[in-house]
Amino acid sequence: MGQGQPDNDNPGGIVAPSIVFIDEAGSLAPDQKRALMGGKGASLALMATTLSLPVPPAFTITTEVCRSYLSSGWPPDLDEGLRAAVAGLEERTGRRLGDPDNPLLLSVRSGAAISMPGMMDTVLNLGLNSETTAGLAGATDERFALDSHRRFVQSYAEVVLRVAADLPEVVASAVREAGVDHEFDLEPGMLSELIADLRQIVADQPGATLPDDPFEQLRTSVAAVFDSWMGERAVEYRRREGIDGDIGTACTIQAMVFGNRDDSSGSGVVFTRDPATGENHSTGDYLPGAQGEDVVSGTHATLPIDDFSRLMPEQGAELDRALELLEDHYRDMCDVEFTVEQGHLHILQCRVGKRTGAAAIRIASQLVEDPGVSLTRAEAVARITPDHLSQVLHVGFAETDTPEVTHGLGASPGAAVGRAYMTTEGAIDAVERGEQVILVRRETSPDDVAAMAVVEGILTSHGGLVSHAAVVARGWGTPCVCGAEQVEVADDHFRVGDVVVTEGDTISIDGTTGSVTLGGRGVVESVVPPELDLILDWADEIASGNLAVRANADTAEDAATAREAGAVGIGLCRTEHMFLSPDRLPLVRAMILAETAEAETEALEQLGTAQQADFEGILDVMDGLPVTVRLLDPPLHEFLPDIGDLVVDEARGDLDPEGQALLKSARYWTEVNPMMGTRGVRLAHLRPGLYRMQAKALFSAVMARCAAGGDPLVEVMIPLTVSGPELALAIEWVREAAADVGMGEAPPVGTMIETPRAALLAGDLAGHADFFSVGSNDLTQLTFGFSRDDVEGRFMDLYLDRGLLDHNPFEHLDDAAVGELVDLAVQRGRGAKPGLKVGVCGEHAGDPRSIPRLLAAGVDYLSCSPARLPTARLAAAHAVLETATPGRGSLRR
Amino acid sequence: MGQGQPDNDNPGGIVAPSIVFIDEAGSLAPDQKRALMGGKGASLALMATTLSLPVPPAFTITTEVCRSYLSSGWPPDLDEGLRAAVAGLEERTGRRLGDPDNPLLLSVRSGAAISMPGMMDTVLNLGLNSETTAGLAGATDERFALDSHRRFVQSYAEVVLRVAADLPEVVASAVREAGVDHEFDLEPGMLSELIADLRQIVADQPGATLPDDPFEQLRTSVAAVFDSWMGERAVEYRRREGIDGDIGTACTIQAMVFGNRDDSSGSGVVFTRDPATGENHSTGDYLPGAQGEDVVSGTHATLPIDDFSRLMPEQGAELDRALELLEDHYRDMCDVEFTVEQGHLHILQCRVGKRTGAAAIRIASQLVEDPGVSLTRAEAVARITPDHLSQVLHVGFAETDTPEVTHGLGASPGAAVGRAYMTTEGAIDAVERGEQVILVRRETSPDDVAAMAVVEGILTSHGGLVSHAAVVARGWGTPCVCGAEQVEVADDHFRVGDVVVTEGDTISIDGTTGSVTLGGRGVVESVVPPELDLILDWADEIASGNLAVRANADTAEDAATAREAGAVGIGLCRTEHMFLSPDRLPLVRAMILAETAEAETEALEQLGTAQQADFEGILDVMDGLPVTVRLLDPPLHEFLPDIGDLVVDEARGDLDPEGQALLKSARYWTEVNPMMGTRGVRLAHLRPGLYRMQAKALFSAVMARCAAGGDPLVEVMIPLTVSGPELALAIEWVREAAADVGMGEAPPVGTMIETPRAALLAGDLAGHADFFSVGSNDLTQLTFGFSRDDVEGRFMDLYLDRGLLDHNPFEHLDDAAVGELVDLAVQRGRGAKPGLKVGVCGEHAGDPRSIPRLLAAGVDYLSCSPARLPTARLAAAHAVLETATPGRGSLRR
Repeated sequence: MGQGQPDNDNPGGIVAPSIVFIDEAGSLAPDQKRALMGGKGASLALMATTLSLPVPPAFTITTEVCRSYLSSGWPPDLDEGLRAAVAGLEERTGRRLGDPDNPLLLSVRSGAAISMPGMMDTVLNLGLNSETTAGLAGATDERFALDSHRRFVQSYAEVVLRVAADLPEVVASAVREAGVDHEFDLEPGMLSELIADLRQIVADQPGATLPDDPFEQLRTSVAAVFDSWMGERAVEYRRREGIDGDIGTACTIQAMVFGNRDDSSGSGVVFTRDPATGENHSTGDYLPGAQGEDVVSGTHATLPIDDFSRLMPEQGAELDRALELLEDHYRDMCDVEFTVEQGHLHILQCRVGKRTGAAAIRIASQLVEDPGVSLTRAEAVARITPDHLSQVLHVGFAETDTPEVTHGLGASPGAAVGRAYMTTEGAIDAVERGEQVILVRRETSPDDVAAMAVVEGILTSHGGLVSHAAVVARGWGTPCVCGAEQVEVADDHFRVGDVVVTEGDTISIDGTTGSVTLGGRGVVESVVPPELDLILDWADEIASGNLAVRANADTAEDAATAREAGAVGIGLCRTEHMFLSPDRLPLVRAMILAETAEAETEALEQLGTAQQADFEGILDVMDGLPVTVRLLDPPLHEFLPDIGDLVVDEARGDLDPEGQALLKSARYWTEVNPMMGTRGVRLAHLRPGLYRMQAKALFSAVMARCAAGGDPLVEVMIPLTVSGPELALAIEWVREAAADVGMGEAPPVGTMIETPRAALLAGDLAGHADFFSVGSNDLTQLTFGFSRDDVEGRFMDLYLDRGLLDHNPFEHLDDAAVGELVDLAVQRGRGAKPGLKVGVCGEHAGDPRSIPRLLAAGVDYLSCSPARLPTARLAAAHAVLETATPGRGSLRR
Repeated sequence: MGQGQPDNDNPGGIVAPSIVFIDEAGSLAPDQKRALMGGKGASLALMATTLSLPVPPAFTITTEVCRSYLSSGWPPDLDEGLRAAVAGLEERTGRRLGDPDNPLLLSVRSGAAISMPGMMDTVLNLGLNSETTAGLAGATDERFALDSHRRFVQSYAEVVLRVAADLPEVVASAVREAGVDHEFDLEPGMLSELIADLRQIVADQPGATLPDDPFEQLRTSVAAVFDSWMGERAVEYRRREGIDGDIGTACTIQAMVFGNRDDSSGSGVVFTRDPATGENHSTGDYLPGAQGEDVVSGTHATLPIDDFSRLMPEQGAELDRALELLEDHYRDMCDVEFTVEQGHLHILQCRVGKRTGAAAIRIASQLVEDPGVSLTRAEAVARITPDHLSQVLHVGFAETDTPEVTHGLGASPGAAVGRAYMTTEGAIDAVERGEQVILVRRETSPDDVAAMAVVEGILTSHGGLVSHAAVVARGWGTPCVCGAEQVEVADDHFRVGDVVVTEGDTISIDGTTGSVTLGGRGVVESVVPPELDLILDWADEIASGNLAVRANADTAEDAATAREAGAVGIGLCRTEHMFLSPDRLPLVRAMILAETAEAETEALEQLGTAQQADFEGILDVMDGLPVTVRLLDPPLHEFLPDIGDLVVDEARGDLDPEGQALLKSARYWTEVNPMMGTRGVRLAHLRPGLYRMQAKALFSAVMARCAAGGDPLVEVMIPLTVSGPELALAIEWVREAAADVGMGEAPPVGTMIETPRAALLAGDLAGHADFFSVGSNDLTQLTFGFSRDDVEGRFMDLYLDRGLLDHNPFEHLDDAAVGELVDLAVQRGRGAKPGLKVGVCGEHAGDPRSIPRLLAAGVDYLSCSPARLPTARLAAAHAVLETATPGRGSLRR
């Protein structure tokens, strides 16, 4: 199997070379180059051919060979091919592998088509044994030869032989004993001793042999590189990143150049722009007299890259030209490794550089203006990932690895530190004393709302991501961890196993990760780069007309945040959240407890007055943009106190008449499965005055805004529909309310699509509805029969760990079943009413992984929480770009 | 628009006569005859032509005319047609309408294509006024003429003029005053006074006029008959029976014959067989000197029909010949009205007779053997309705209209009378004292099971048809009413509004209708006719190969009942019900409370031993027939005491250590929406020993039965699946258990299709499952987002009343959405695995209205509760017949 020969093992018959010299790879198409030679081999080939940069001679054993090796072992003809390739290197360098006088030394590096930094292994200075080391010493100097030999022994022992001992520590201790700064300062005698020690450690390991024969060193190193593809770290990394495990790695063998050669030698790593901030100047490290591994190991004090140009002006200028060439070619910030050997610059590697979120945003926007690159706006937007945004947007804890005392569900993102209080009264008193407070409860109920409004964060032991605590906390942007099941909550302390946290103790909760720690942690405020707005504006340009992004907002404050964050409307205004505030709760309870029609009407009217003011506030903020108001959805028991507490009070004889009335009502409204009980439009049919009151309050607000010269645009949405007549009657009430307040024409009235039946009967519903809004949370619950409150804490993790589900369907849309129901809802809805507007207002509307699926289903707009708006705007643009130009994905990292 | 002329109003251009003489209707096809002339007109036409029976001359105004009248008012040319038709009658009878000497009198009767007995109106003796009455008196006798006049005035006043007064009471009081038995015994003078009184009542009603002109009498009577089609009673009847309201009624005008003419006259009604028992002899009533209305009014003491043959042997023989002819023609038992006028027999009407369930069964089976009829077995089966079966199978209360004190859901059919006890202890003590007891609870829990096992009936105020009470009661065949929401239960009494029922008071509950009454009611045991087995065997013959009927049975006793009732296997054996018996509950709780793996294993082993014995019992009973065992399904909290009671005990300090452990566990396992929580295969993944234990117990039972020479055929079913891997792992446990006990090959393992996702992903699931069983209850719950426990008592009635849903989808399968999911499950399942066996084991499997839809979906077998087996076997045959020969529906009444 010689270089450039067809690979006979390839059953598809595609002609693919098994070994390619980087200076002969010009004929391969870029994609093919990357697939066969890996990122590293491909970039070397590019530099050696197209860019004519000084690259040491090298060849690549292709990924084809790796795949063959991994499935059937060492290919019989690979030895022959390898010998021929080594001969090619010898010809190019004028040295011979194993030549006792002037030996050719090699590096052996892995490199897959997709970057997996640090995940696989490298052998350096290959070709040395006692004989060639002596020859090298003769041709150069002894310290350099021995230092190189030590490096070879160490890397071969670690990578190929998997020696268990801590070899870096053996080297470090030799350095300490010698009283020098670096291992390459060791005297030849000490180096010889160190090499002997290392070789002894290898000899002591059963079955381990360090071959003297350079070709045998090469064979075993290549095999080790291939094996590292299946190493634990690499497999785990691929699983996490979703990289196909079948593609295999290439292996590049390159003639060594020596930064450790002498004082006019050295190695460096440089980024064409600052990878932390994105500022447009090269940034990096240089280490004189060292090999590249010394620069990146972090164990040596490196010089800033600017010093390199100072020390070696000529080479510095040559490097700057190379960097410019590379950035213009890659059209992106690059990460470049170089070595200077006796004054000669060699570029060893180039790849597109990793960067922080802030840098990604700044670089992408700057490259649009850069005349050498002229990135398109679409390319700039495509390069920003949701992770980049997350980095710049969320407040987090400074350290990320503080040991946690327990862990729950990250229910409302953000970091909070405060003193733990386990009762609403205790929490409020503490806040009034000026303390920062974390409210810790088994679960929360409307009676806790007064405390929830003033604390720094909320921790509950029960309930999932749609529990009362989670929903309220997200609404107010208060960090919240819920469903931390190991926490046992009492009135004056809580316990996690043996740990007892007493009232007033400080704890920290991370609402993003779900982590709970004892004591206070340092919080890092996020810094949003000014270029973000530019990127998001471009994203909106791209998505506009295909996928609009609105926000979920229930109050004027939320609406203002949402508008500020770029929402083009409110897609979900939940009227129940208005009812939950401490001053409204008594009015709602009065309505629920009303024993006469008059009392009910009076309570409804008071609620109506209050709601009208709320609506006016929201419509004022959103003037000129659509606001979709969902009429009351949750079951009534959510507005009542916890029945368990009432029952206990009753048993103790502590229940006053109001408490007794509440208990009776709570008993009456208690449901076995409230999620599938009397809520949404069902409640409206039981209490026909309710929706009419809400609609009237809303439309009165519209009239008031119009009178004030505003431009209010409302849409009304009926929740939890299952049948056409059920929807039609509710819509009639809304239209009657419009007539009642003297509106000329009623605003659009639509329906939520939340039940599988609504999705399947979308054709019928479209006969009545002016628009659809898919409630993907409830639809997911019903499609799986998964109650979020119950399954997420209990068995979701186990299901994901065992692979029983691909992913948590509440986090990312279930493509198969829920996705099909969304498809059917859109198709059947538009079949009955062409052009029907369809939105999505579940969690998935803010999830970048779900958004392309929703676009594919034909959805017109998304509505997500204000905090997810930037992510959703970006993801919407990405989804539209993917759809518009298939394969455009290669622009995205 | 004359008789026999084309109806120009018919936009479709179909030539349809608007008026048809019964003796000229021979050219109409039977279906057309019935559609145009109604059932009554068609039968008269048949008798007058084909059968040559003595029928008084008549013509029918067709349903076409009625439809035209109802949409556009009295047709302009109808007067002319009516006059021509009357002329035809005059020609046939030799009398003239309005002739003062010998007047022609008419009856005007409604009659739709579909029988609506008693729902519409009739005017008799039309044509009389003072002048023609005098003429009639002259031609016959005065008493007869006046009696006929009185009848005309009364029927016209009631039917056409809708006089509000109680005219029958006016007549009855005149009879009482005269001291005679019957109104036709009144002397002419008294009759004249009575007529004057009746006419005065008419005159007193504003706007009411009784025309003297006979043709005007006729016109207004025809209009009244047409109007009666839209009368409240008729509309309500059609709504209930699902009859199309657009078809309209025909109106038949017939020359009167007079059973009240003299002593050699009379009227009778006769059934060709006994409509109560089905015995093969004619049965009926005869009333000398009376018109037909007197016979059926129930106000006169009639003679048995045998007396008619005795009184008038010649006419009796003629009638017998007519009855035989009619039964042979209709191929069914007939209901015949006749009148003898002065020795001349006239047949006035014939229709297929209504009958009891027992009679229907006996008659259908006998007609198969009857040489004159030779009914096919398929026809016989098709004629038995689910109502017929219900009549012969269920124990019920004697009277059906006892006023109820409240009403709940009929959760387990049957009637029960007993003393009310509100606590489990109270109920058990009372049973031990020898009392019959009804247990009354808010809801039941496993702690009530000991009482539930010994009481006559169960009444709960909360929970629906799948509540604990309902499920346990149905399992044991104990009558149960649940979800009687108005009932407020305390420890020593219960209250319904102002009514207080104290412990020990007797109440009656009807588990079929949901009715609750105070005091004891008489119970009627059902009598099953021996021919039922024959009919059901024929039904099985018909359905066999298309739709098998199995039963749901959880115990050997249930299995025996099911096998006895004709089940060809068990389609659903719920293993949780075995766990609920009082002696197993401690074992289950030990498993739940186990704090160590050893304790859990020990508890599982004890349960396994107990289950094995249960399984052996069932397999013994079902030897040679398949038994499908569903592994544990319900959430664990169902096996724990009520948390509310425990909390109260805790607050009172009454909780012992075991109680505390139970409370802790109950708290842990409490779920917000248990229906969508940790149950089914999810529970199995949390407690991996559970399914393996159950499968091992089952397979050990199989091995034991085999060793004993039996032929056990088991199938194992995994509940609540949502994904392929989830199912695959559970199936693996079952197969491992089979290997553990040394079975050569594991029995079939299938999955329930209960979640919408399972239905949509049926293709994936079929890759793992050997069969499917659709759990249509849960599938309905999730498709609608309707928790049965919550919606049925709360808003289902309201939804049905307001037409927001066509029907309760838990009673009859929702064709649209749930039906589509069943279709998809079958199609996709068989797409992946051709020939995949699919069963249904929800309530719908026993519902005659749902069964045709399930057959259409392609289902192979049904599995229903043993009590519904006869109905399901019959409905399966009906469904197969409908499918095999479309239009066969006309065989069914």
